[in-house]
Amino acid sequence: MIAQHEIEVRTSGRGIYDISRDVQSCVGESRIDVGLCQVFIRHTSASLMLCENADPAVLRDMEAFMSRTVPDGDPMFTHTAEGPDDMPAHVRSVLTQTSLTVPVANGSLVLGTWQGIFLWEHRSRPHRRQLQVTVLG
Amino acid sequence: MIAQHEIEVRTSGRGIYDISRDVQSCVGESRIDVGLCQVFIRHTSASLMLCENADPAVLRDMEAFMSRTVPDGDPMFTHTAEGPDDMPAHVRSVLTQTSLTVPVANGSLVLGTWQGIFLWEHRSRPHRRQLQVTVLG
Amino acid sequence: MIAQHEIEVRTSGRGIYDISRDVQSCVGESRIDVGLCQVFIRHTSASLMLCENADPAVLRDMEAFMSRTVPDGDPMFTHTAEGPDDMPAHVRSVLTQTSLTVPVANGSLVLGTWQGIFLWEHRSRPHRRQLQVTVLG
Repeated sequence: MIAQHEIEVRTSGRGIYDISRDVQSCVGESRIDVGLCQVFIRHTSASLMLCENADPAVLRDMEAFMSRTVPDGDPMFTHTAEGPDDMPAHVRSVLTQTSLTVPVANGSLVLGTWQGIFLWEHRSRPHRRQLQVTVLG
Repeated sequence: MIAQHEIEVRTSGRGIYDISRDVQSCVGESRIDVGLCQVFIRHTSASLMLCENADPAVLRDMEAFMSRTVPDGDPMFTHTAEGPDDMPAHVRSVLTQTSLTVPVANGSLVLGTWQGIFLWEHRSRPHRRQLQVTVLG
Repeated sequence: MIAQHEIEVRTSGRGIYDISRDVQSCVGESRIDVGLCQVFIRHTSASLMLCENADPAVLRDMEAFMSRTVPDGDPMFTHTAEGPDDMPAHVRSVLTQTSLTVPVANGSLVLGTWQGIFLWEHRSRPHRRQLQVTVLG
C-alpha cells in the first residue's frame, strides 16, 4: 500500500519549525500500520532534520553553529544573486537533509522520546515550502 | 513484504561501532530477496554513517575531524545541561545520519567492497541505543 | 512492485556531475507510477547530493566551501595511503549523502523546479562509480 500527500509549510524566515504533527497526520490518514514514511522537501534552500524536541536552546544552538560554519555574505561565494543568505542556504541544505525516512509501526512514526521532525528554513525571508510525504507499507 | 526488527546496541562511550552484521542479520531473517533495508536510530546524540570499513585510521581521523569541527565545551553552546559533550552530540548527529537506506539484492545488503554501516556514539558515557530496522521487498 | 538497476558513472576526477536523467530513466523503465526511488552509491569517497540545478556557480561555490572545510593534505589526517585527497574524500562523503530517496508520482521523480540529483566525485583522479537504483511502488 502507498499513500502520498503534499504538505505546504509557510515559514516566517530563517528558523527551525517542528513538522512532526503534520507528518504524523499523513501516516494516520494513510491507515498504514507497518512500513516507512518518507518526507521530501522540494527545495534546495530549506531542509529537513531529526533533532531534539524538548529544549528550545538546542534549536538556537543549532542555528548558531550553522551560522558560524556557513556565514552569510562569505566573500568566497560567487552565487549571490538573491543576497548574502542565498548560497549559504544551499550549503546548509546539503549539510543537513532533503530526504528523511522514518519507520512506521502501529500506525505511528517510530520516533524516540526526544526526537522531532523539523523543517529548517535557511532563507531570511518568509517562504512557502512544498513537502511530499510518502507512506509505504 | 515488510519485516521490522528492533536492535539494541550498547556503546562504551564516544566512538564508532560497526553494525553491518546486525543489519545484515535482519535482512537474512526477513527472507526478502530484493528491496530496501532502512536503519533508523531513535536518538539525537548518536547517529549512523556509511564509511570505509578496512583501515581503523579512517574512523580515528573521522572522529578527529568531527572533534575539531564541533568542539566539546564550545562557549557558543547554551544547551549544556548534560555536560560539554551534550550539544556537540546533537550537532554531530545532524551533520551525519539518523536514517540510512541500503538496497537489498539476492537477500543481502548491496554494499560496496569497502563500505560498512556504523553507529557513531557522540556522548562520552556508555549508552544503550535503540535502532529500528525495516526491510521492504 | 520493485525494479532495481545498476548504473555506472564515469567521472573525470573531482567535481559534481548531474545524474538526474540517469535516475529518471530508471524510474521510466520501472513503469512504476507512484512510490519511491532510492539511489545508493557503493563507495565512500564519492557521494550523492540534491542541489540547485540552474546556476553553475552554485556547484563551484559548493566545491569551494567543501575544500575549505575539509582541506586536502590536512596534517590531522593519518589515513593518507592514497594521497592528500584520500581521507578528505571520506569525510566529504560522510557530510553529504551515500543514500538518497526521492518520491515518484505520475511515473516521474517529484523534484522541485530547481532541484537536481548530483554525484560528487571527491577523489582527484577519474573513477568508475557504481550506483544501485531501486524503485518501489
